[in-house]
Amino acid sequence: MKKPIKIATIGGGSSYTPELVEGFIKRYDELPIQELWLVDIEEGKEKLEIVGNLAKRMFKKANLPVEVHLTFDRRKALKDADFVTTQFRVGLLDARAKDERIPLKYGVLGQETNGPGGLFKGLRTIPIILEIVSEMQELCPNAWLVNFTNPAGMVTEAVFRHSDFRRVVGLCNVPIGMEMGIAKLLDVEHSRVRIDFAGLNHMVYGLDIYVDGESVKDKVIELMTNPNNTNFVKNIEGQEWEPAFIRSLNALPCPYHNFYYKRPETLKKTMESAEKEGTRAEVVQRLEKELFELYKNENLNIKPPQLQERGGAYYSDAAVRLITSIYNDRGDIQPVNTMNNGAIASIANDSAVEVSCIITKDGPKPIAVGDIPIAARGLVQQIKSFERIASEAAVEGSYDKAVLALTINPLVSSDKAAKQIVDEMLEAHKDYLPKFFNR
Amino acid sequence: MKKPIKIATIGGGSSYTPELVEGFIKRYDELPIQELWLVDIEEGKEKLEIVGNLAKRMFKKANLPVEVHLTFDRRKALKDADFVTTQFRVGLLDARAKDERIPLKYGVLGQETNGPGGLFKGLRTIPIILEIVSEMQELCPNAWLVNFTNPAGMVTEAVFRHSDFRRVVGLCNVPIGMEMGIAKLLDVEHSRVRIDFAGLNHMVYGLDIYVDGESVKDKVIELMTNPNNTNFVKNIEGQEWEPAFIRSLNALPCPYHNFYYKRPETLKKTMESAEKEGTRAEVVQRLEKELFELYKNENLNIKPPQLQERGGAYYSDAAVRLITSIYNDRGDIQPVNTMNNGAIASIANDSAVEVSCIITKDGPKPIAVGDIPIAARGLVQQIKSFERIASEAAVEGSYDKAVLALTINPLVSSDKAAKQIVDEMLEAHKDYLPKFFNR
Amino acid sequence: MKKPIKIATIGGGSSYTPELVEGFIKRYDELPIQELWLVDIEEGKEKLEIVGNLAKRMFKKANLPVEVHLTFDRRKALKDADFVTTQFRVGLLDARAKDERIPLKYGVLGQETNGPGGLFKGLRTIPIILEIVSEMQELCPNAWLVNFTNPAGMVTEAVFRHSDFRRVVGLCNVPIGMEMGIAKLLDVEHSRVRIDFAGLNHMVYGLDIYVDGESVKDKVIELMTNPNNTNFVKNIEGQEWEPAFIRSLNALPCPYHNFYYKRPETLKKTMESAEKEGTRAEVVQRLEKELFELYKNENLNIKPPQLQERGGAYYSDAAVRLITSIYNDRGDIQPVNTMNNGAIASIANDSAVEVSCIITKDGPKPIAVGDIPIAARGLVQQIKSFERIASEAAVEGSYDKAVLALTINPLVSSDKAAKQIVDEMLEAHKDYLPKFFNR
Amino acid sequence: MKKPIKIATIGGGSSYTPELVEGFIKRYDELPIQELWLVDIEEGKEKLEIVGNLAKRMFKKANLPVEVHLTFDRRKALKDADFVTTQFRVGLLDARAKDERIPLKYGVLGQETNGPGGLFKGLRTIPIILEIVSEMQELCPNAWLVNFTNPAGMVTEAVFRHSDFRRVVGLCNVPIGMEMGIAKLLDVEHSRVRIDFAGLNHMVYGLDIYVDGESVKDKVIELMTNPNNTNFVKNIEGQEWEPAFIRSLNALPCPYHNFYYKRPETLKKTMESAEKEGTRAEVVQRLEKELFELYKNENLNIKPPQLQERGGAYYSDAAVRLITSIYNDRGDIQPVNTMNNGAIASIANDSAVEVSCIITKDGPKPIAVGDIPIAARGLVQQIKSFERIASEAAVEGSYDKAVLALTINPLVSSDKAAKQIVDEMLEAHKDYLPKFFNR
Repeated sequence: MKKPIKIATIGGGSSYTPELVEGFIKRYDELPIQELWLVDIEEGKEKLEIVGNLAKRMFKKANLPVEVHLTFDRRKALKDADFVTTQFRVGLLDARAKDERIPLKYGVLGQETNGPGGLFKGLRTIPIILEIVSEMQELCPNAWLVNFTNPAGMVTEAVFRHSDFRRVVGLCNVPIGMEMGIAKLLDVEHSRVRIDFAGLNHMVYGLDIYVDGESVKDKVIELMTNPNNTNFVKNIEGQEWEPAFIRSLNALPCPYHNFYYKRPETLKKTMESAEKEGTRAEVVQRLEKELFELYKNENLNIKPPQLQERGGAYYSDAAVRLITSIYNDRGDIQPVNTMNNGAIASIANDSAVEVSCIITKDGPKPIAVGDIPIAARGLVQQIKSFERIASEAAVEGSYDKAVLALTINPLVSSDKAAKQIVDEMLEAHKDYLPKFFNR
Repeated sequence: MKKPIKIATIGGGSSYTPELVEGFIKRYDELPIQELWLVDIEEGKEKLEIVGNLAKRMFKKANLPVEVHLTFDRRKALKDADFVTTQFRVGLLDARAKDERIPLKYGVLGQETNGPGGLFKGLRTIPIILEIVSEMQELCPNAWLVNFTNPAGMVTEAVFRHSDFRRVVGLCNVPIGMEMGIAKLLDVEHSRVRIDFAGLNHMVYGLDIYVDGESVKDKVIELMTNPNNTNFVKNIEGQEWEPAFIRSLNALPCPYHNFYYKRPETLKKTMESAEKEGTRAEVVQRLEKELFELYKNENLNIKPPQLQERGGAYYSDAAVRLITSIYNDRGDIQPVNTMNNGAIASIANDSAVEVSCIITKDGPKPIAVGDIPIAARGLVQQIKSFERIASEAAVEGSYDKAVLALTINPLVSSDKAAKQIVDEMLEAHKDYLPKFFNR
Repeated sequence: MKKPIKIATIGGGSSYTPELVEGFIKRYDELPIQELWLVDIEEGKEKLEIVGNLAKRMFKKANLPVEVHLTFDRRKALKDADFVTTQFRVGLLDARAKDERIPLKYGVLGQETNGPGGLFKGLRTIPIILEIVSEMQELCPNAWLVNFTNPAGMVTEAVFRHSDFRRVVGLCNVPIGMEMGIAKLLDVEHSRVRIDFAGLNHMVYGLDIYVDGESVKDKVIELMTNPNNTNFVKNIEGQEWEPAFIRSLNALPCPYHNFYYKRPETLKKTMESAEKEGTRAEVVQRLEKELFELYKNENLNIKPPQLQERGGAYYSDAAVRLITSIYNDRGDIQPVNTMNNGAIASIANDSAVEVSCIITKDGPKPIAVGDIPIAARGLVQQIKSFERIASEAAVEGSYDKAVLALTINPLVSSDKAAKQIVDEMLEAHKDYLPKFFNR
Repeated sequence: MKKPIKIATIGGGSSYTPELVEGFIKRYDELPIQELWLVDIEEGKEKLEIVGNLAKRMFKKANLPVEVHLTFDRRKALKDADFVTTQFRVGLLDARAKDERIPLKYGVLGQETNGPGGLFKGLRTIPIILEIVSEMQELCPNAWLVNFTNPAGMVTEAVFRHSDFRRVVGLCNVPIGMEMGIAKLLDVEHSRVRIDFAGLNHMVYGLDIYVDGESVKDKVIELMTNPNNTNFVKNIEGQEWEPAFIRSLNALPCPYHNFYYKRPETLKKTMESAEKEGTRAEVVQRLEKELFELYKNENLNIKPPQLQERGGAYYSDAAVRLITSIYNDRGDIQPVNTMNNGAIASIANDSAVEVSCIITKDGPKPIAVGDIPIAARGLVQQIKSFERIASEAAVEGSYDKAVLALTINPLVSSDKAAKQIVDEMLEAHKDYLPKFFNR
């Protein structure tokens, strides 16, 4: 008989948790979890309780015998866990707001994953992740770490480079969102769409696109470049590319590519909306407040529909789908962040990549794509270099490497701006960067 | 007995030619050339004669039996040549002025080698180079093509990718200038300095720096980052880097790296000087006018010192040094553009790189460096991708690839700006882009 | 509605055909074929008719509306086919008998795939395969070529190197046999066993072994090296390895590895049995005679059980399973010969490898394994070099390359023996080697 | 002023030492050594004194102020040394005799570098080399280790894989011997010949051959395959290849390739001569006895000509040439064993290769050759795999890896013979294999 399933969720007090719980409920037949441990820090006690109680009500309403444990004791939660999910945010949304605001002062996009914001989120997050990994090696060495915490690519890279733990998968909702977009564009069921993904987290390309296994890439590109396709914009947001560019790229960019292939325009738009409605973090802060008000309602026992607007759609779907496939040795294809192992020729074999994988009980196995298009190689390598140097900066508490990482970042491209941003952001995030200050 | 040496110089009417002639005079003992053929197009007749006559007077003054031939017949010049040098400029400085001016309208640096200007210079130049290569395969298959024509990296890449001719070397004065700068900084003779170069044309790094074979890299970086080193700026121009950046990069950038590591500042400066004194092409146009006036003087029989200001210092030194080493199977170390062959791990083996080579009669053999620093890989790959796609655009006359090349260029990063620049520049250079218009 | 399925089988008069037909019958629900075209040469008319009539009786007995066409006109059979399978044997078993016998004279194993026998089988087969490929590009460019004809690795390599056709899959029954062996050893159902395969055809390794997704490699190696495991030998034949060797190799060899890891012993055994009962080809010739007698019986309407002894067990299973998965875009994992694309780091990206793949409508996509064990890399590269040079010899009709291929073959390791074997075998196979004689 | 040069020679009591001393005398002008420390073990006291006294007489006769120190204290010799050379032999020639004799019993060549003999020489030697390296890191971290001790490839690999010391160069007289052979064959001065070497120690290929910088490879191959070239055999011994083989290999093998491309013939010849005149070690033992008798003669003050017959011709030339070039930052081309760094594509970047290098004060820098011929890749990788696994066996004292190393060795190819040889040789060399017995 199989051992009962124990799941530990670090950052369990997050407003996302009801999504995750809904996912577990939907797939309970395939993934009969017995214990869900929601872990958070003491400062997050109130939220943890609100969310934890909602989770309990949700399982109860679904009539499922899942025990929900709330705790500040991470080690207890990790002990003998089967899967550990991470969705914590060091410094909360306040920190993200700074990640977004400060770079704008220097004429630079903040970008919370692959930009200056991502650098600082990484500097705050990576030391904690490496602590968790080290505890897992002691307390649940056979568990899988499913990391949602951004910058997911940099975090996965850091685990590969700075620990010998290999049971980690980085997860993102961007690829699943791209599949959904294509499904809508072509008006077919999501399950009929498959994309060959390859690249990095938030810098992933669809190398080919299939419906029922037949390539429809040419058709999609035709639709994307056809000026008469008026339905296009509302169907796949963030994919309004110059026809000449997209035809010759001959691959599907991800929405985050707007930062690199429409840098000046995106900067302008971001500055304007920061001015008008606040940065994304500030908007989300308001949304979260409302969500927690809803969660408190003791009659609420399902995921409230308002959570949708929070962003991160399909995250729980992606996460629970992944865990279910690992648990059941499913062998289906899912795009995740894992070790390259040669799947993409121009990325180092021992680096993290985001690529379509076969999901087995032994973890994800990447499908070899040969290489990404020549046109994409430089940018992808640039972000990979950024991730590697940023993760070294995080582990070593190196000021110089933080400046180097930002200088080579394509959103910055200025050693002077890099230095100024690092200086101001180090100060702003002082409390969460012990490697930089306690030495 | 060795066959007498014949050299053909395409674009022989250039104002540079007296430099080259001076180089040949200085090294005549090792490289006893018998015939120098200066080739140009009919429209350049006047310049060709002015320069050609000066060349004749220079050899005469030096008392050397070198025959100078002036011709519009390229095939005659190539017939049985030993070395072919190329220094022509399709569309002359007028075209360069457009390459520099037009992108500025769209807030983008022109940059005549690895930027939008370089793309259009490549589109104009590559078809001609491929014609020359094809004629060489017929008329002088054992000759070496020493290419000075910019964008030298893209041109060399194009020859490797779009012909089966392999006896081509791309040449640049940047590495020799970096050695000179270091020599001045350390106050030692140039001949005592050696740098391990690796990268691409106008994107080359000094991975290590030696004086008399002992590494002085740490010392150089210390000097570069020491605020008390007041002599620094005037000694190695274009190398004013943030200390944190240069320390962690741990390699010597080239002056062209200012375009990528100080992009916003360089853009601002370029816009201002274009406003005030004109673009570089416009400045050079004035200089050239003056030079040709000087060249006309029948009493002038040496290279006039004013040529120095023209830019391109050490070009002739680099070129004649290279030719002499090939001719004499010298086996010395020189930085040139050649096929990678594994010298730099993260660049494709069959791409052109700029790297320290052993120069033999069999051509340059690259020294394997392992790889360039992680921090440099993305940017270098980005320019390599740009070069490859640009050279495909040139050969195929592909509008879409021209837009793609510019979109991925780190000076542009906008599909919209890329399209606008391509549209305006195609129109501006119409006469020199038959592949794009005569199809 | 889907187009009806047409399958063309080149070498349709083979004694294997009833296997294949049985496979089609078993999977008819998933793969409703409408036309099966059995193609052979005029010399094989009698066999083709015997086998073809049996095939018709088999489909009839199964009550399936499959049309069986017998033809000598390959082009007609290929026209609009969906799948083409190849199982022909140039020179029939007589040629194989020579492939096996002649090398033994020189103290060398014949080995009909990766040895001298394989070289000559390749020289006879590759030109025909390239003809078929070229006809497919004209007559059924979207069809998949499923090649059973040995040497399957060399043939697949030849298609990749000497044509631009990419819709080819090389198929072998060795991996499926290894799975069956492991299933028996562990006494579990075949469907619960999965092996991570990587290597080349007839030189494939099991890098890891799973039951229900859990690794059992350590357990399998323990069983293989445990002297008390008396059931071992009869369960996984050809896997009697020295414990120290198999423990440190830490991977599962395939039965063909006996040729390389037990070369002297295998040579001795082969010589003895060639003496006593004849070579394998000679034994099979006797079996085939008996089989065709059975096939003639008009009352026979199923695959006769005696076919099992013919060898090639599971071939039809492997083939029909593959075709069914392609047709239905199944996305399941199967080991096949396909383009490497980085799946195995130490093999060239554009070479054929035998590796676990995801099977989709777009063909097999290899799973990246990183690399094969260090201990295996040399031997695998040696056979790959052999395959590449042999396929060049086949295409060019090059005597020198044939000698080179054999000299570097690990079963030969003698330039003198290589020359002698090539000389005698060229003469023996004269009629089937027009590239070598008609020039 | 430059620091005076101190050289430490480990195994200084070797009969080779007078060669080395002669080399130092010849190049004293460029390499003015002040101290030569000859180190040996106490058991070698007598030989050390004989050789040491001869060395003193030789320097005196040459009128050079070189101090010769004899010591058993390795640390004292290493302290502040500039160059350390190693030429020791653990177990002396007795051990080598066993390395050669025992494998022959099992029908396998002994081969003291890349065969079973080499495995055991490596198992005895590598732990000592790693000790020396560790002492050097403490006592003379800037010194260069010039290793002559065989198996030089495996030893260099072991230093790269099992220490972080990088100032090591492996040296061999095979490449210089190949140049000499070609010079004789073509009747030109040695200094006019240059070969592009690439491969591994005792498995190196000449990819191209030049006289005065012009390729003469085709001519050399023509001479090697011309039956009328009667002078050939006596000119380049060990290079009698089948014309078809050598033409299609299109590279110059080294004499050790006879073991792999003429394996059966070489085995037969070795067995016969072991029978008749004893193995090579046994012959050399007799020669050495005579040499030491000569060395004792107090009137002898030059290298006695009889040393030539000892084998290892040009060793001292190669060694002193290398040391001189490092010391003087010469920048000339020499073939040595160094880290690959991409020079040969199909070998791992961090493995040792034997390849033409530029010799600088910063050590050897390999010239990138792209790749070795396809035909050579498998064999070279096989020996590299052997070297890597053998060096792991040496460091770990692993019986299993020793058996694995031999099984995959192309001279063995039998797990059973591998086990038998390892068993007998472990026993025979017991006293020199503490890692295997004291655990």
